[in-house]
Amino acid sequence: MTEYSKSKLNTVNRLGKRGKYDFETIHGLVNQSPVVHVAFATDTSEPFPTILPMIGQMGSFKDSSAGLDSPLECYLHGYVSSRIMRLSQEAVARGEDGLPVCVTATKVDGYVLALAPFHHSYNYRSAILHGYAQPVESEEEKAWAMELVTNSVVPQRWQNARTPPTKTEMKSTTILRVKIHAGSAKLRSGVPSDDRFDLKDESVVNNVWAGVVPTWQVMGDPIPSSDNAVAKVPGYLKEFVEKENIRNKDIALKAVKE
Amino acid sequence: MTEYSKSKLNTVNRLGKRGKYDFETIHGLVNQSPVVHVAFATDTSEPFPTILPMIGQMGSFKDSSAGLDSPLECYLHGYVSSRIMRLSQEAVARGEDGLPVCVTATKVDGYVLALAPFHHSYNYRSAILHGYAQPVESEEEKAWAMELVTNSVVPQRWQNARTPPTKTEMKSTTILRVKIHAGSAKLRSGVPSDDRFDLKDESVVNNVWAGVVPTWQVMGDPIPSSDNAVAKVPGYLKEFVEKENIRNKDIALKAVKE
Repeated sequence: MTEYSKSKLNTVNRLGKRGKYDFETIHGLVNQSPVVHVAFATDTSEPFPTILPMIGQMGSFKDSSAGLDSPLECYLHGYVSSRIMRLSQEAVARGEDGLPVCVTATKVDGYVLALAPFHHSYNYRSAILHGYAQPVESEEEKAWAMELVTNSVVPQRWQNARTPPTKTEMKSTTILRVKIHAGSAKLRSGVPSDDRFDLKDESVVNNVWAGVVPTWQVMGDPIPSSDNAVAKVPGYLKEFVEKENIRNKDIALKAVKE
Repeated sequence: MTEYSKSKLNTVNRLGKRGKYDFETIHGLVNQSPVVHVAFATDTSEPFPTILPMIGQMGSFKDSSAGLDSPLECYLHGYVSSRIMRLSQEAVARGEDGLPVCVTATKVDGYVLALAPFHHSYNYRSAILHGYAQPVESEEEKAWAMELVTNSVVPQRWQNARTPPTKTEMKSTTILRVKIHAGSAKLRSGVPSDDRFDLKDESVVNNVWAGVVPTWQVMGDPIPSSDNAVAKVPGYLKEFVEKENIRNKDIALKAVKE
């Protein structure tokens, strides 16, 4: 299996040709996003679901070398409020699969400026996963996931920071593992798509600029803290910043031409 | 009233000093985000809430000159699936205030690299709103909101595109208005905060680079589409790109020093 099966839950209905269901696209988008948004229902008297920004990374504890095109689980870390932890634990205690959550990752690659506001859009890539969140209980899996998540922010950072974590740090860290139930992605690239009657109207075409403003996330030079005693920015960090800057710009520019 | 009152729903519990409740901070964050994430409960047999990336902008139709520090409503546009529209309409038809939703806007300003992985963080700004979504029914308010949303992407774009919309465009456009029930923001800035025992350990301090990698959204030069007939990039667009690039970089760099 290398893709999520389509169901009522995950099928992209509007502009369906933009929908993608393969593991590689969806998992890759989650792994490239510094932040994912996680929605869950609360147990207050209020009717609203809530959203937390968290760090998310796809991985497989059983087969840590599994590629993006394999079935993976989503490991979540970040400002794990006591609420999402408590609700996940309570769900497991009730014998359920975990807390039902929705995880999304979104990248904006360009502002698509058409002749008419109606056809304005973004070039974007977004992924959505639905699944059941459980707190990771085993110490071994937790340590593995902490390394996975840390290295998802900056590759090789775990090996180049003070590790292993202390017992207190391990206890204070909470990781959620989301067993994926459904997933999909939606992508838009290219130039604006305008109506023929606007393209034929000289007063419109001669007055309205149409095209794309590409946009991407850029990283500046690393800034040492006052406590830092390492004279040079280490190679792994320098390389990460340089590579990401090139890659992100490249994606945004290529999206215009697709 | 210039801030949201604190309740169980919106109080920032973890690291509470990072919490903010004033209208200006929260509304400003929504308005600066090209994309917001909107969560709502579905009516399928599945237990998962779902999330849509949408365009969101705070505003007041009754007092369109109201500032960010005023009570405002959130206007949503984008890939409004038939589902969120239908659910909002159904809620109104049942005599309810609308569909309960959660709207979030998140900006990452820097990668905070501490000595220990445990103290790694992001400099970030995130806003969260809870409220009731209703489809905008009045033609006048809808036209106003379409202009608000278009100009939130690129200022003055509405005036510089082909307007007004055709009757078909008006009919095909759906705008949701969210009446805000609660809101809060959470912000982190500055350098890493490490434990004293790590800072005193020379083998740690001399080997682990500590500091911040600032990050921000950058826009490239506007790329005309093959249908474009306007020779020069118009002033309002050039100015927008230049100003945003300076502002975004400035925010990320200033956050390190705070």
